[in-house]
Amino acid sequence: MKIAILGTGFISRFYVESLVAQRRKDEVTMVYGRDEAKAKKFAADYNIPNISTNLQEAASHKDVDVAVIGLANDVHLDAVLACARAKKHVITTKPLGRNAKEALQMLQAVEKAGIVGGYLEDLCYTPKFLKSLAAIKSGSIGEVIWAKSRETHPGPHSDWFWDKNRAGGGAIIDLGCHCVEIARNFIGKNIRPVEVMCWADTRMHPIDAEDNAIGLVKYANGAIGQFEVSWSFRGGMDLRDEVMGTEGTIWVNNFLRTGIEMFTSGKTTSYVAEKAESTSGWLFPVGDEVHELGYNNMFSDMFDAIEKNKQPAETFYDGYIVNAILDAAYASAKSKKWEPVIIEDWRGLKEVKQKHEYADYDNNYYLIKEEILPSGEKKTIVKHKQTGSIEKR
Amino acid sequence: MKIAILGTGFISRFYVESLVAQRRKDEVTMVYGRDEAKAKKFAADYNIPNISTNLQEAASHKDVDVAVIGLANDVHLDAVLACARAKKHVITTKPLGRNAKEALQMLQAVEKAGIVGGYLEDLCYTPKFLKSLAAIKSGSIGEVIWAKSRETHPGPHSDWFWDKNRAGGGAIIDLGCHCVEIARNFIGKNIRPVEVMCWADTRMHPIDAEDNAIGLVKYANGAIGQFEVSWSFRGGMDLRDEVMGTEGTIWVNNFLRTGIEMFTSGKTTSYVAEKAESTSGWLFPVGDEVHELGYNNMFSDMFDAIEKNKQPAETFYDGYIVNAILDAAYASAKSKKWEPVIIEDWRGLKEVKQKHEYADYDNNYYLIKEEILPSGEKKTIVKHKQTGSIEKR
Amino acid sequence: MKIAILGTGFISRFYVESLVAQRRKDEVTMVYGRDEAKAKKFAADYNIPNISTNLQEAASHKDVDVAVIGLANDVHLDAVLACARAKKHVITTKPLGRNAKEALQMLQAVEKAGIVGGYLEDLCYTPKFLKSLAAIKSGSIGEVIWAKSRETHPGPHSDWFWDKNRAGGGAIIDLGCHCVEIARNFIGKNIRPVEVMCWADTRMHPIDAEDNAIGLVKYANGAIGQFEVSWSFRGGMDLRDEVMGTEGTIWVNNFLRTGIEMFTSGKTTSYVAEKAESTSGWLFPVGDEVHELGYNNMFSDMFDAIEKNKQPAETFYDGYIVNAILDAAYASAKSKKWEPVIIEDWRGLKEVKQKHEYADYDNNYYLIKEEILPSGEKKTIVKHKQTGSIEKR
Amino acid sequence: MKIAILGTGFISRFYVESLVAQRRKDEVTMVYGRDEAKAKKFAADYNIPNISTNLQEAASHKDVDVAVIGLANDVHLDAVLACARAKKHVITTKPLGRNAKEALQMLQAVEKAGIVGGYLEDLCYTPKFLKSLAAIKSGSIGEVIWAKSRETHPGPHSDWFWDKNRAGGGAIIDLGCHCVEIARNFIGKNIRPVEVMCWADTRMHPIDAEDNAIGLVKYANGAIGQFEVSWSFRGGMDLRDEVMGTEGTIWVNNFLRTGIEMFTSGKTTSYVAEKAESTSGWLFPVGDEVHELGYNNMFSDMFDAIEKNKQPAETFYDGYIVNAILDAAYASAKSKKWEPVIIEDWRGLKEVKQKHEYADYDNNYYLIKEEILPSGEKKTIVKHKQTGSIEKR
Repeated sequence: MKIAILGTGFISRFYVESLVAQRRKDEVTMVYGRDEAKAKKFAADYNIPNISTNLQEAASHKDVDVAVIGLANDVHLDAVLACARAKKHVITTKPLGRNAKEALQMLQAVEKAGIVGGYLEDLCYTPKFLKSLAAIKSGSIGEVIWAKSRETHPGPHSDWFWDKNRAGGGAIIDLGCHCVEIARNFIGKNIRPVEVMCWADTRMHPIDAEDNAIGLVKYANGAIGQFEVSWSFRGGMDLRDEVMGTEGTIWVNNFLRTGIEMFTSGKTTSYVAEKAESTSGWLFPVGDEVHELGYNNMFSDMFDAIEKNKQPAETFYDGYIVNAILDAAYASAKSKKWEPVIIEDWRGLKEVKQKHEYADYDNNYYLIKEEILPSGEKKTIVKHKQTGSIEKR
Repeated sequence: MKIAILGTGFISRFYVESLVAQRRKDEVTMVYGRDEAKAKKFAADYNIPNISTNLQEAASHKDVDVAVIGLANDVHLDAVLACARAKKHVITTKPLGRNAKEALQMLQAVEKAGIVGGYLEDLCYTPKFLKSLAAIKSGSIGEVIWAKSRETHPGPHSDWFWDKNRAGGGAIIDLGCHCVEIARNFIGKNIRPVEVMCWADTRMHPIDAEDNAIGLVKYANGAIGQFEVSWSFRGGMDLRDEVMGTEGTIWVNNFLRTGIEMFTSGKTTSYVAEKAESTSGWLFPVGDEVHELGYNNMFSDMFDAIEKNKQPAETFYDGYIVNAILDAAYASAKSKKWEPVIIEDWRGLKEVKQKHEYADYDNNYYLIKEEILPSGEKKTIVKHKQTGSIEKR
Repeated sequence: MKIAILGTGFISRFYVESLVAQRRKDEVTMVYGRDEAKAKKFAADYNIPNISTNLQEAASHKDVDVAVIGLANDVHLDAVLACARAKKHVITTKPLGRNAKEALQMLQAVEKAGIVGGYLEDLCYTPKFLKSLAAIKSGSIGEVIWAKSRETHPGPHSDWFWDKNRAGGGAIIDLGCHCVEIARNFIGKNIRPVEVMCWADTRMHPIDAEDNAIGLVKYANGAIGQFEVSWSFRGGMDLRDEVMGTEGTIWVNNFLRTGIEMFTSGKTTSYVAEKAESTSGWLFPVGDEVHELGYNNMFSDMFDAIEKNKQPAETFYDGYIVNAILDAAYASAKSKKWEPVIIEDWRGLKEVKQKHEYADYDNNYYLIKEEILPSGEKKTIVKHKQTGSIEKR
Repeated sequence: MKIAILGTGFISRFYVESLVAQRRKDEVTMVYGRDEAKAKKFAADYNIPNISTNLQEAASHKDVDVAVIGLANDVHLDAVLACARAKKHVITTKPLGRNAKEALQMLQAVEKAGIVGGYLEDLCYTPKFLKSLAAIKSGSIGEVIWAKSRETHPGPHSDWFWDKNRAGGGAIIDLGCHCVEIARNFIGKNIRPVEVMCWADTRMHPIDAEDNAIGLVKYANGAIGQFEVSWSFRGGMDLRDEVMGTEGTIWVNNFLRTGIEMFTSGKTTSYVAEKAESTSGWLFPVGDEVHELGYNNMFSDMFDAIEKNKQPAETFYDGYIVNAILDAAYASAKSKKWEPVIIEDWRGLKEVKQKHEYADYDNNYYLIKEEILPSGEKKTIVKHKQTGSIEKR
């Protein structure tokens, strides 16, 4: 696959490092950057034959099969439209748009152009996420009733993130988009997100956007997707997911506690990990950051999909749904009540009901709970089906 | 201290085991139980000289200095009033009342009688909680902006917990009371809780009360106290607290991961830990459950306070505040919006403002963020104080 | 119980803090210190009515039931003999002697005097140790075939530890004594320790004693007790035990990872934990250090034993066995081969054979292994009882 | 790179799964197996165009650039000689030989043939190992004085492992080879391993080879490499490394605790992880097993080296050194004393001395230790350079 990288910032560098790792057969043939000097340096660093400072030109270049958008949120739409015009497949960094309206335009553009629109939601491709999702799909933890995803760190790298207009918001749009899509995958992508309750506040930084937020997304089957995001967390990057199912539990720690623990008295000051806060004392590096953050699996899936003429696991449609949920989150943070998720083109299940299948104790009673006490005694609590009386057996 | 135990159930047994541990000088002189046979067995098990099936008689017995209430929620009020009439100090298992109205009656009764009313919030006495609280009070993590407490397990032991009328609710009143008071301690007890947003649902059990809930408590200084509670968690008892401060982070795991990891092929089936779900495979027992859950420190503080004629760390007033917050949580779960916390007799700070002290970059700019990138390059993001323009340095 | 504390250093302070915790009924009535000023300060800090600078006088005081020795290793023998003369029960900090010869003298002295000689091996009283030992004794992990105990930190507090003559050695005598007795408990106290292999070296400090060592103790039933000790470990105090049994595994972490994780930017510099190395970054404090290190359970057991006229769990005899094992370790470090453990008065099992009970696959074959492969396929490996041929089924 | 896989068993399948992952440009063009049916199935499963049941034929095939040996230990030598005759690069699964004599023959054969001989020591390519090694090489933990590697699990998959003659030994040759090379990397490959002390025993299985062993490898600079291996560990596969340096500590957990924790009530029985022992209760799966175990990095390094005409990180020479160390371990297990490591062709540093650089306190004293006590007091312990007297300051 011949790839154009649109963008020369932090995320584009992460992308290219993934694309050249492990003897991949794909090659980056073009880099676009508004700033020619930066584009030249980027091309030199990664041995890229072509550069351009013109978006349409970059996307239309003959040696490009697919464009990877690593630009600021406010230029995603323009870049996608350029690719659609050029009929080149396009895969875009998250979030898809600054809001659902932009996202819907992008979705419609790629569908009309007949190209693949891949949504680069890397945290839905981490090895731990994929293993967890497989376990859930195989039924290992029963029905998911609550899925939480948390991403908190001391704040993003690039200046435009901190500008509410360019980014489309603050920590919610930057980090919440990951959390929402992770929970949505665990709960089931064909279950409709119905309404959102969200708290957001600007606690630590001199900015207009929120730097801390917590949200609850209610799904049609009663499941709750929870997100916790912060740009003022101290101690590194906290990337954790927790899932409660009727038959089990999954806890995932993607970054701060992955099995390397290092203490150093601090005689050196080398790079430890993305968003680490210190270089001495106890540190928790990640073995292969690029892989643990999902980039390798993500690009493999994207390019395999394009070659095989099918959809990748994360598409522009998913990006649109995420934006619709985040729009509701912003509305709720303002209105201080649950707000509906407005989706113009729902493609999942139309009707889902919350299940209520209770275990029978006998013909007359439901079983509430059985337990072995420290004494070894077994305790059973039941409820009469008609009278509702709660009793011990 | 001569102690009457009012109640003969699971929690009363935990209490007495703490009271006789480690060569304590206190002694249990009386046990009250409605069911004479159970009271007799309890007295025999723990070598208690007196039993009674009459609440007032038990509280008034000459060999009793203080009564410990380990009864169901619906009889807390009666039991406290009996102690107040007898002018005996009384310490009560959590929650204080089924609602703020009951709690206020109890608070007023003990204050009028001039006795100590201790609130047995054991999770505010665990060794880890006390260490964390001391660290926070010493300023180690700066100002607390978010404090989460989570208690989830497969459901309580006694039948009355599952009966909404007797308990005053479900998982919120049973577990949320712990979480709310933990977060309130971390944020500061003299900061007024202002409003609550709460989701609650009955997902797994044939009961009227909620078995899962998440709530956000907003404090006057902008801090958020979060609770996550469940009676359908699989895998044991999950007791975790997380605190984000402006200068640091605290994560506490009280139960499922405390430093013992045991794998067993399952040839034996002995008791592992409170609310453990299995007796083979990987297990995570707790060294000294009674101590880790705070009982020893709690009773030491209560009796020391009584002897020294001062208030313990957790009082009936705290119990009342918790009930007031939980009342707002139940109201919010129903109204689907933030609900105010109604406190009749606020004794903390009257006015607190959310702080906004930004770091200066220079005279014209605020500092948003400084960071060392993987390349070793230092990146600084600033905001113009007048124009609001966000720039990179 | 009326207690004389012999010693005024770090360990004596730890002891007294345990003795006054949690409303204990015991009281410290005497403190002995060679240095009168330090003894006075100690008495003032802990409200102790009597002081003495004369060992025999302190031990013989009428208001003393039991003496607690918290002195340097080279005065244990004198102090024990003083107590034996005074016919006062005596409990001694670890190690019992600087070598088995001293230990044997102390053992014989208390037995002749008819007093209790308690061995203050606190790490055999930690809540986690007791839970683990109970699990092992109940058969949860089958027969123990390997028990490792590790104690490493950046070196002891008091100057005499670093003096080979006064201490009787270095890290082996200081830390190895804990590890040896922990493993011995797990393997079984009545199983005879047979021989020892030990590596020891002075790697980091300008001292004559070893500051790093690893040893293997072979028991009569084939089990191995392993110790790893260091006075040059960086990162705090690492106190871990690992046990492999035929039916299971136990991993215990007593100190550095017990369920509190704290990050602090370092604006304060308060005390974190015993032997912690830093006061900023990620820190891992322990909730209740004194309790987690076993002091409370240890003193409760010692005084209960004395009151009930029976032996505590850890006695001078245990201290003697530990010294005998450590003598063999020092011999092996020198001779570079396995050295026998010389015990004058073995009181455990006389004959134990290493078990070899193999599982039958059928009449002709032993079962070596059964396994489910990723493919779902079941693999069975067997060995012919006569020919020894290893085959797949 | 065009690859021949020699072997069709468990490890060969792991290899091929790594070779086809993440859009690699390499391709497997040949598979050799003694059993034609298995070779055919293998070729069909992975879409391999050529099969052969003749080793020399497979190695010599025109569409083969490099042969990957995934065969039993007793045929490594034959297979390597076949590749040498065919002048095809060869990379071999660990251990290189059953002993140093075999390994040396292989080393000489590839060097004479002028081909690359790569040693497939995957655990020296895990992401965590590489990160740790980089940290050590950058000086983060100072000089390494002790490096332990532990590999324990319930025993290998294939029948030939259990046959002492075919495998060349038991758990030492199977697992110890990993541990020895891991520690050797951390300590420094150019530091000569001098002598070995080893305990080995057959505790659990009806076999002639050892199923449990512990060894210490002493290096010329005084550093100790320790290995702990077992075929009778219960609870999964325990792959941990621990390194103590003069300035820091590294702990790596490659398998059982990597950041996924899953509880399942056991309604499904899908594959969890290599050598997991149960499919219900608390499980600890690994995100991307093949990557976490180092296969991807290993093959990338091997093929990059071949293409660039240089040596990979792990070569036949390393395999030879490992075999020489393991030979000494077996000798020591028998002689019960330290045994020298016999190396015919040492290519590292000839002379290394154990460093002894002590910190000065002042002109007359060395500094032994400085510490902040709980009281806040600072304690300094020093040693007189001439008299050796140890004093407190």
